[in-house]
Amino acid sequence: MPYRSPLTELRFHLAHVAGFSRLAATPRFAEATPDTVDAILTEAARLCDEVLAPLNRAGDLHPARLENGAVRTPPGFADGYRAIAEGGWIGLSAPPDWGGAGLPLTLATCVNDMMSGACLALQLNPLMTQGQIETLTHHASPDLQALYLPKLVSGEWSGTMNLTESQAGSDVGALRTRAEPDGNGAFRLTGEKIYITWADNDFTGNVVHMVLARLPDGAPGTKGISLFLVPKVLPNADGNPGEPNALRPLKLEHKLGLHGSPTAVMSYEGAKGWLVGPPHGGMAAMFTMMNNARLGVGVQGIGIAEAAFQQALDWATTRRQGRADGTGTIIEHPDVRRMLAHMKAETFAARAIALDCAVALDMAAATGDPQWTARAAFLTPIAKAFGTDTGHAVAQLSLQVHGGAGYIEGTGAAQLARDVRVTQIYEGTNGIQALDLVGRKLSDGGEAASRLLDEVERIARAARPAHAALAEPLWQAAESLREATDWLLATPSARGAGATAYLRAFARVLGGRAHLQAALAGDGPRARLAAFYLRRLLPEHAALLAEVRDGADAVLAVTPGDLAA
Amino acid sequence: MPYRSPLTELRFHLAHVAGFSRLAATPRFAEATPDTVDAILTEAARLCDEVLAPLNRAGDLHPARLENGAVRTPPGFADGYRAIAEGGWIGLSAPPDWGGAGLPLTLATCVNDMMSGACLALQLNPLMTQGQIETLTHHASPDLQALYLPKLVSGEWSGTMNLTESQAGSDVGALRTRAEPDGNGAFRLTGEKIYITWADNDFTGNVVHMVLARLPDGAPGTKGISLFLVPKVLPNADGNPGEPNALRPLKLEHKLGLHGSPTAVMSYEGAKGWLVGPPHGGMAAMFTMMNNARLGVGVQGIGIAEAAFQQALDWATTRRQGRADGTGTIIEHPDVRRMLAHMKAETFAARAIALDCAVALDMAAATGDPQWTARAAFLTPIAKAFGTDTGHAVAQLSLQVHGGAGYIEGTGAAQLARDVRVTQIYEGTNGIQALDLVGRKLSDGGEAASRLLDEVERIARAARPAHAALAEPLWQAAESLREATDWLLATPSARGAGATAYLRAFARVLGGRAHLQAALAGDGPRARLAAFYLRRLLPEHAALLAEVRDGADAVLAVTPGDLAA
Repeated sequence: MPYRSPLTELRFHLAHVAGFSRLAATPRFAEATPDTVDAILTEAARLCDEVLAPLNRAGDLHPARLENGAVRTPPGFADGYRAIAEGGWIGLSAPPDWGGAGLPLTLATCVNDMMSGACLALQLNPLMTQGQIETLTHHASPDLQALYLPKLVSGEWSGTMNLTESQAGSDVGALRTRAEPDGNGAFRLTGEKIYITWADNDFTGNVVHMVLARLPDGAPGTKGISLFLVPKVLPNADGNPGEPNALRPLKLEHKLGLHGSPTAVMSYEGAKGWLVGPPHGGMAAMFTMMNNARLGVGVQGIGIAEAAFQQALDWATTRRQGRADGTGTIIEHPDVRRMLAHMKAETFAARAIALDCAVALDMAAATGDPQWTARAAFLTPIAKAFGTDTGHAVAQLSLQVHGGAGYIEGTGAAQLARDVRVTQIYEGTNGIQALDLVGRKLSDGGEAASRLLDEVERIARAARPAHAALAEPLWQAAESLREATDWLLATPSARGAGATAYLRAFARVLGGRAHLQAALAGDGPRARLAAFYLRRLLPEHAALLAEVRDGADAVLAVTPGDLAA
Repeated sequence: MPYRSPLTELRFHLAHVAGFSRLAATPRFAEATPDTVDAILTEAARLCDEVLAPLNRAGDLHPARLENGAVRTPPGFADGYRAIAEGGWIGLSAPPDWGGAGLPLTLATCVNDMMSGACLALQLNPLMTQGQIETLTHHASPDLQALYLPKLVSGEWSGTMNLTESQAGSDVGALRTRAEPDGNGAFRLTGEKIYITWADNDFTGNVVHMVLARLPDGAPGTKGISLFLVPKVLPNADGNPGEPNALRPLKLEHKLGLHGSPTAVMSYEGAKGWLVGPPHGGMAAMFTMMNNARLGVGVQGIGIAEAAFQQALDWATTRRQGRADGTGTIIEHPDVRRMLAHMKAETFAARAIALDCAVALDMAAATGDPQWTARAAFLTPIAKAFGTDTGHAVAQLSLQVHGGAGYIEGTGAAQLARDVRVTQIYEGTNGIQALDLVGRKLSDGGEAASRLLDEVERIARAARPAHAALAEPLWQAAESLREATDWLLATPSARGAGATAYLRAFARVLGGRAHLQAALAGDGPRARLAAFYLRRLLPEHAALLAEVRDGADAVLAVTPGDLAA
């Protein structure tokens, strides 16, 4: 069954869970009226369903490849990209100064959700560009902005991030790429970067690399890292591509999935670049790029979860089994129904968390209120990790619902499971997200966490009259989470070992809140799905919090020697 | 790092957890002395490490293919198979009457564990043959036994099972393959079977297919199904291959993993076959074949878990990160340590359950005591589902520990994750295993379950003096599981929706017992791993039992219409 963008679902989220109307009430986003939003979502859905989704299988079957030093993309990808760029989708939330539509990131997040479900390998390209636009908007000089931003926003050029080196993955501070001043205000970069997503293509006029490197006077570790803009082709005085720069993709990786997206080893051989942000200020600039991308990657997981759920539902309602007269379909089996309800309920929860984060980012931009900034910062690692864990889990369940057919390539279920797997790893592994949550994001003394839990409890209390059986366990879960948060704040040594469980417990509770809101606002189906989640999935939080509160002892007691024994 | 068979681990299991010495105390297995067992395991480990493991990558890179109607296997597989056959490994637990060694299945299970970790795609071939040997031993006529069993036991010929048809997967009763008597005591089979594992090869003199089909007077559904033996090549009067039979592989499937193992669509075009078991008695005969194979498949999951853990541990102890002086490795990070401890603790639990099941099967064979038979029957679906779920989960964690490198093919982590995925599906999906557990396996009124829980509680009580903090939660978990079992027995309508959670909760408790036994018998490392499991993984059982006791309402309330909304 072909992918269908979840328009009804997104509309419901915006109207009843994410509180999108708050945005339209701000001067900054006054144009984001319900009619405009609806027209935009409808148009994006048409692009996704009619143009992008049909490319997804071809991207898997005909991987991007390197020919004479240039990347060749899968059949149809160039046309798909052109449709994305010409529709203005890349700059949907980019500043109008540079040609963007200036609409809320929340809307762009909905579009990214649909595009990810349609064709993740291609969607990854504009997602990288969007992160670069955000970075340049905040950190680049006016000259660089004027030269690069219009072309990135229009999609004439595309962007990449170059962080990782073979000895420096999550540990970015170990990087070795050097940048030497060229005496004319620019720099010469030398080094090798790995895992560069969409490092090259055959459909944009230029590829703009954002590269982390160390200046000659840069300290060791992360403090001495700077960020540079390094284009594939050096712009002429008129801003059009001129001479090629001294850089090249050395090889493309053979990956588990996302075959349509070229992942390269990039070699910088004295390539010309320009500083973005202050010298040695690369980490801050990188985090701008990554935070935006982290939410985007979480949404990739949600898009794949949606696509995988749709496939599984279609299979379960057409696959005939279990009755002698051949009329039954496997959706009648309680265990299959359970898997499908699980998939839908989890996707709903993950999507609600991602949109909550997007709305907070927009409200922070619209109001300057640091509470919104703190909320967004707290929700980002949860949206990333839970969104991608959900994408993986739902894709695996979809494969399982398909039975033997799920293991055969061509059904599509296996491709989704392969494609989504990297989202748990890139833009900071989900383990790194969890450490960010219990470290940096709790460093406000738990204030952002506490505000979120206050809100969950307020909603639970308000829901008690109509939905006591659902509201009460959610309130209890929020209280347990609050106690665990306080305990974690008082017990820093326990954070590392409990981080992953803590993040997931928080997502469980936030998912419960979203489902309860849906039950209050929605109809029978919403209430029944909420009951499924709150009765059958929420209880996991207790086991997770038990793990958190067990501390680090039991983990660290198992020594490397024990493991090798 | 090359795979190393877990000899120390298997010896510890046999001596201190599985109670292998009980077997050697029976007349039937008197030859299975510690010295013999040790010599056999050591020899098998050498084969796995030196001959089979080096083939694993080639099997992935050079998939089996169909050329002019014949299967060509990956480079080295023919030599690997020959080494397995010539070592006598296929018939390790087969009856001596047919050339087998007559040793305990428990020992064969250990060998299968090691072979699965070394090269799953190839190991799958003799595993299928072992299931066929078991079936023919119990159900075939003496003539068929005399003609086929010696050649299957020696590995001169190999065996397959042909159950699935495109419209009949888990619902075997919907099959359409027909068998017509040929008037000379044999039959002619016509139909198409799918997902036939190792349907053909280029290294055995014959391939013997066990095929489910319906006789002309067979009733609809499962009651009218019979089992037939259908060789690729018809034996001459002297028992050697003569004329080719009317069957052929139509195509090989392109699968997510296990590329080295050919999975075919088989066409039977009036192929000559012989009845195995009574007419219309195919399901009983099939269950003999499948029950054996179900334990075997569970063990495949454990073998992959072992291999994936070894890879992750090697990566985590050599990948340098996080310290300015470059001396730290990622195993120092608590979240990485947690993942590794999780992998090792789960693999230990799954292996203990599989060996418990194997010992019960051996004790049933050696003593004829129906309590052992009931124990084995109860443990089989748990061993299959939890073994393969663990294989999948551990392979995924290994991929995650590898970070970006895990997503690149060639590291090996991704291959293990792809290869193991089908084990959760074939030989009855894990959902089917769970339904078998709450249906057929509780149909004794819960007696087998209760005996197992008595044993867990006995061990927990005995451990209290030395390990109160570990024994007490285990005892409590066993009690909760007992109450949930009674509740499920009294509430049959809840079984379907709670089956998967119930199976996993039972595995959690059995795993806890095994870890506690290890802590009592073992040294510091064993006790520390047990503490990790009992403190951090066992608590999951409470969430699982909450799901069980929630009943079916919340699941079935979510209608197909709700899901499509």
